[in-house]
Amino acid sequence: MGASTKQGYDIATKSREIIRELIGDDIKDLKPAEKDIVERIVHSTADPEYAKLVAISDDFVDAALKSMKNNETILTDINMVKAGITQYDGEVCCYIKNDEVKQIAKENEITRAAAAIRYACQNDFEGIIVSGNAPTAVWEAMDLYNKGELNVKAIVGVPVGFVGAADSKEELRKSNIPNIITQGPKGGTPIAVACVNSLIQTLRGI
Amino acid sequence: MGASTKQGYDIATKSREIIRELIGDDIKDLKPAEKDIVERIVHSTADPEYAKLVAISDDFVDAALKSMKNNETILTDINMVKAGITQYDGEVCCYIKNDEVKQIAKENEITRAAAAIRYACQNDFEGIIVSGNAPTAVWEAMDLYNKGELNVKAIVGVPVGFVGAADSKEELRKSNIPNIITQGPKGGTPIAVACVNSLIQTLRGI
Repeated sequence: MGASTKQGYDIATKSREIIRELIGDDIKDLKPAEKDIVERIVHSTADPEYAKLVAISDDFVDAALKSMKNNETILTDINMVKAGITQYDGEVCCYIKNDEVKQIAKENEITRAAAAIRYACQNDFEGIIVSGNAPTAVWEAMDLYNKGELNVKAIVGVPVGFVGAADSKEELRKSNIPNIITQGPKGGTPIAVACVNSLIQTLRGI
Repeated sequence: MGASTKQGYDIATKSREIIRELIGDDIKDLKPAEKDIVERIVHSTADPEYAKLVAISDDFVDAALKSMKNNETILTDINMVKAGITQYDGEVCCYIKNDEVKQIAKENEITRAAAAIRYACQNDFEGIIVSGNAPTAVWEAMDLYNKGELNVKAIVGVPVGFVGAADSKEELRKSNIPNIITQGPKGGTPIAVACVNSLIQTLRGI
């Protein structure tokens, strides 16, 4: 789980054992790759509640792995999420600081996170969207997808916050887009990153 | 709290109101800058439990603000933490991917996170250490500080994990280094970033 030295590996192994004790029951019906994702989320937050909050659509893992196998783009809502995604062979993008994105946000009175999705859509984006922060990014992605304009293969939708986050995730869960979400206000960067890095590890193990 | 558009500000304002309802009692005895830190941590995790887990030494805010006012270095344990610290006038560094750091880790059989602290120490580091991930970084910093070798002014010590994290934070709390910690296994990148960005905002408000 990201370890690269003997001491690091020992810590990761012991941590994995503790996590399996804590959440084994909650995840016993999941597929192996899904179990890995949830275990890694709990590892990166030390918060076993996530085993109860994570919901994964049946088609999510296959859709995400297929996209990643083709080295399609991973688009993140904020740079913190981008910084955490390591060892991906394709491109990991974040447009939140892009000048055109700032302009789109200003002109349309939308958040920069939403504007960044719109910008990606206008620039031939194809791949996976990962939102660890902004519900408005998830809303925008669903809106563009429903209009048939956004070529998104899967969404990691785990934005965090007391305002709008839970609703956006519930709506994503009901959509036809392969998705992983966390129910309720909780979520965030480490959850998003843990999910993607777990998938990368699964992909490399194939 | 990081918002840059009208919609973003509206969300942040409503979120702050909800947070004050949830944790107002827990933080009523804190100083204003400390309250801001805890509110921002809860904002960035949507997890009110952090209001009970955060412990801030009496000298932390003053020591950290003084260091930041002098634009001293902010040294982070991982790049995700670095990516989240925005609008700081001084340098924000992370050495985890540095080749010399990898060599130090290998030769001494320590984690790269610990080796990165040692490397910074050997290269005239002066400032604040921010650990959102690796307890070994906190242990190494305390060890070098106790030997009189590390010029650290404050530590944001909020590493996460079931193995070693809680112990490292408890030890840091008992130390003479101005510090903020989260009690128990919980912690992580968003907590570290929220703390530093809140201090930056306080500094700009002075």
